[in-house]
This record gives sequence, structure tokens and C-alpha cells, in this order.
Amino acid sequence: MTDNVITLGHGSGGLLTHELVRDLFVRAFSNPLLDPLDDGAILPSPGGPLALTTDAFVVSPLEFLGGDIGSLAINGTVNDLAVSGARPQHIALAAILEEGLDRALLERVVLSAAEAARGAGVLVVTGDTKVVERGKGDGVYLTTTGVGAMRPGFPRSDRGPGPGDVVLVSGPVGDHGAVILAARSGVELQTTLASDCGPVTDLVEALFEADAVPLFLRDPTRGGLATLLCDLAEAGGCEVAVSEADLPLRTETSAICDIVGVDPLHLACEGCVVAVVEADRANQALDAWRVLESGAGAQAIGELRSAGRGRVVLHTRYGGARTLLRPTAELLPRIC
Amino acid sequence: MTDNVITLGHGSGGLLTHELVRDLFVRAFSNPLLDPLDDGAILPSPGGPLALTTDAFVVSPLEFLGGDIGSLAINGTVNDLAVSGARPQHIALAAILEEGLDRALLERVVLSAAEAARGAGVLVVTGDTKVVERGKGDGVYLTTTGVGAMRPGFPRSDRGPGPGDVVLVSGPVGDHGAVILAARSGVELQTTLASDCGPVTDLVEALFEADAVPLFLRDPTRGGLATLLCDLAEAGGCEVAVSEADLPLRTETSAICDIVGVDPLHLACEGCVVAVVEADRANQALDAWRVLESGAGAQAIGELRSAGRGRVVLHTRYGGARTLLRPTAELLPRIC
Repeated sequence: MTDNVITLGHGSGGLLTHELVRDLFVRAFSNPLLDPLDDGAILPSPGGPLALTTDAFVVSPLEFLGGDIGSLAINGTVNDLAVSGARPQHIALAAILEEGLDRALLERVVLSAAEAARGAGVLVVTGDTKVVERGKGDGVYLTTTGVGAMRPGFPRSDRGPGPGDVVLVSGPVGDHGAVILAARSGVELQTTLASDCGPVTDLVEALFEADAVPLFLRDPTRGGLATLLCDLAEAGGCEVAVSEADLPLRTETSAICDIVGVDPLHLACEGCVVAVVEADRANQALDAWRVLESGAGAQAIGELRSAGRGRVVLHTRYGGARTLLRPTAELLPRIC
Repeated sequence: MTDNVITLGHGSGGLLTHELVRDLFVRAFSNPLLDPLDDGAILPSPGGPLALTTDAFVVSPLEFLGGDIGSLAINGTVNDLAVSGARPQHIALAAILEEGLDRALLERVVLSAAEAARGAGVLVVTGDTKVVERGKGDGVYLTTTGVGAMRPGFPRSDRGPGPGDVVLVSGPVGDHGAVILAARSGVELQTTLASDCGPVTDLVEALFEADAVPLFLRDPTRGGLATLLCDLAEAGGCEVAVSEADLPLRTETSAICDIVGVDPLHLACEGCVVAVVEADRANQALDAWRVLESGAGAQAIGELRSAGRGRVVLHTRYGGARTLLRPTAELLPRIC
């Protein structure tokens, strides 16, 4: 039955999304630029390759602690460009508004997007606005598409991630997801927890400046850190071993996850990156990150091992180990 | 009251859309690439300028005579690139799906988009899929963003449109709008009328090959031919005089408009272009168009005159004249 209709799980970023994208979209549009299914496409261009990436934002609520759909839509696409190895430059913004939307709310969202664009150093250069009838939308949906010039020398052609390489994360994971989860569950936050929604451009730039050009670079959004590490284990054809004690995770985020019963490693981040570097570059990469506000909580969280191809193992504080998996069904719809 | 909320009129492409875009979006994001508010932005790039354009598609019904939201989303963005003077190359596609959407319908739409992309010679290189709860969408919304390399020598730097220049249209106007209007009004079509949804790339290419490089080039989508001609009259700082007898308009489209009580010149086309050329290039441009299937109904419909700055005058079959205006309120929501 449910095979014949689209469910919320198809938008989770997990297995159902993956299957829908692979069996329908990629099969229909297949071409060498699309098929790698990275966060963005790399376009050949006479002046050097360009990255192109697009994301639809349907987050609910539209405004949350630390951001709103406007800042999220700008930073989300800026970050997809940055982790593709591009310098984010230009953004196209398409808005689908619901009839009856409060204009003051729309203004706050647009001004927030404009501030995020200034903060990330990108220009919104073109756009579109459509309005749908009441009950056919949910206030505002935004789609942002970004263009940026690829950095020379990235992705690295010498080698990909492999055994012995170190996994770094730039800061606490799951904060964005936890804030949305709390808002959605009616959990009143008595803390200062806010979404990490922000640009990762400085974090990426710092790696290149520190001569720690990453072997793998991604931001853990939908599906969280666990999904990203599963992708890494598959890409590297090896095991990813992560130490729970080294994972940067705020007490508040952890507490919200305990209350609601979800794994913080499945929660989205919106201003965080994961990089894999050679072991002898890990310290210079961490040093470069920790001087940045967005990288103050950076940690080396694990390493790649030749055993257990494609597996992610979390070594707990108590000496145990558990395998990390991607979330199968929808954990939290409309997180971004 | 209504000043404080978004109405369907804000999505019409008419005066309310113009005001919303100018007072909110352009004010917030203002920069030299955005401010011209053309169909797309022209980005400087070391290998030559690129065009970037985005459109959200929310058409209802999702499938209609002559096309569906998939072919419309590809051709709409291909056409925005083409009339910007770019050769369409790459498309990013973001989908917002409603929970409960019939998967077979989604497959038809995606396959139709893929066929449209092949027909227009573009590659869909990246995408995104989100799912919203039942009642927060309407089946499928698609946002397409296109990139293409600008043709050298366009837009023309020697001069813009001015008195004496001729206005050409590539074929019958209003067919897309009429088909949607009929479907929405419950008018049963006993005719072969279908949306003109299709790529205008060949039409644009033909102008360049025929050495009739246009002084103004646009496709009459939301707001129809009348809105486009008003924009032209303002851009040229002169009067646009159009002859009703020369306007290519199908009897069926005209009949539907009579039944429903709308002006066919306010109805969207989705596979048609309007070009302004010097008077001594008009015939070679028309000849080049008329050998194409999409240009078989091409006509010279009028000219630019120095009197009546910014005004569009339609000279009727019966010797009268009326001023053409943009539609003020929403004529037909969700036409594209």
C-alpha cells in the first residue's frame, strides 16, 4: 500500500529518500554530472569548474531559537557549496508563500535571509515568488540554489579517505535538530540552547589555509552525524571507529534527546562540518578550527580502520561498542 | 487589512507581485546583479558571463493538455535562460512533495521533466526532495534553477529598443493559460487546443543565425502578452502600437476567454517569445522562425513609436484603439 504513495519518510534524508532519489530521479535524469549524487554538481566551465547546489527548505516552525527559515535557507546552501569545495558566491531564491501569511513574518524571514547572505559573503542575485491558496502550503517554503567557483586542488585527486585517517568534527552535533525537536514536542527550554544555523565557510577556508586539505568534507544535516559517517564508511570502503567520549555534544541536546527518545547522532546540524584528514594533519586542522568561534568545540572523534568495510562503530564511554546506522523511517519531518 | 497578509494577487506576476518584490525582496538583498530584476541574473565568470535563473512551479492541475508540472518546470527555466541570451546548459531541480502523493503521478511528472530536459538539450545535474504533511502542499511543487553561458554580443550594447523597431511574436498567444483556465473552470474542450509548453531555444537560436539579433527578447508568461508589452514600452521609453488583426490567437483560446470573461492578452504562454528587431530585419527574422514548428504562426504584431511614452495601444480590427494594461489583481492563480 504505502509503496504507492509518498510518505513523510521519503523526505527524511534516510533510506526511503535515498531509494526514491535513486530509483526515480536519478534513473530519469541520469548523466555523469548528476550520478555521483554529491551535495552539489560540479559543472565544467571555461573559467574553471563551478559548483551548483539546490535545496528546498520546509522547516517547521518557521522561526526557532537561533534562526528561521530565511537564515537556514541561505546557510544551508552556502554550506553545501562550501563542503563541495567551492567558494560560495551567488544565490537564487524562490519562495512559495501561502495565502494569508502574515506580512510582518515574511519580512522578518527575508531580512534574516539578507543578513545571513551578508554574513556568508554571498549575493542573492535572482528570485521568484509564487502564492498558493490557504491550506496548500505552510506559510513559507524557500528554495535556494547556489553557485560558487571550485577551489583548485579539491576534491583531492591523489587519494580518498582510507585506513589511518582521522575524523574531525567542528563543534557540538545535533543542536539544530534538538531545538526543532523541543519546539515541536512542546518541551520548554530553560537553557541557552540555540540552533547552530550558520555558515561553515570560515571552517572550510581554515582547513585549506592550515594545509590540511580534507580527504572527505561534509556537513551533517538531515540524518545527522550517524548518516554522514555511514556515507563515509561506504565511500572509504573501510570501518569508521568513533569514540563516544570525544564526541562534542551539549548536555542540553543530550537531555532533549533523552526526553523525546531519539539518538542525537541522528539529529541535523546546520553550522557544523566533518572533515577527514591524514593523521599527521589532524592537530594543525584542529588548531585552525579552534581559533574560530564556530570551531571552538572542534574535536577529533575517531579514525578509519581497514576492518569492517562500510561499518560505523561507536565505542562507548563504558568500554562497549555499538554499530551506528542511518535512521530508517522519519525521525523528525521538516527539520530543514 | 489585506496590506498585512499575503494574498493570491501577490503571486500573479502583476502589480502586487511587482510591489512585493520591489519593497521587500529587492530592498533586503539589493546588489548590482539583482537590481535590474530581469528574468535571470548575469554572473561575471572568468570563462565569460553566465546566466542564472530560478522559478518555483505550483501549477494546478498538475497534469493538463499539452504538458504537466514536470515539463513546465524544465521548459519554464530553459526559456528564461534563452530569453536572457544564454544557451541553457544545467538545471537544478528541487521538489516539495505532499504526503500521500500518488507515486505513479510523481513518476509521470519526473519522466515528463526528463523528456523535456532531453528535448531542450539540458542536463538536470543536482536536486533535492522534501516531503510535507498532507494538507501542507498540493501534490508536487517544483523549483528549477538554470545555468547557461551568455551568448557573446547579447544583450546588445549598441542600442536598446526604440521608435521604428518592430515587435514580433513567435506564435499564438495565451494557449497555456486557456488550457489551465478551461480545466479550472470545468469547460470541456472539444478541440485540439493544448498548452504551448515547450522550449524556445530554437526560436532564439534562429534569430541569431538569421543576423536579426533582438533589441528586446522575452517570453510572455505570467501576466501574458499585455504585461510584456507594458514592460517593453517602459524599457523603450516609447509607445508600443499593436494591431489586433496581426495578433496570432487561436479561435479556441479566444472562445475560452469569452466564456470565462478574461482578456487572452493577459494569459500566459509557455513556449512563445516576443522579440523586437530593427524594421529592416523583421522579414529575415520571421522567415527564420516560420521554418520551425514552434514558429509556424510567427507574426509582426506592431511597432514602437515615439509618442505616448510607456503606453501600449491596441488598434482593433474595427478601427478603434484601446490601451493595454497589466492585470491588477489575480486573474488565474497557479498558472505556472
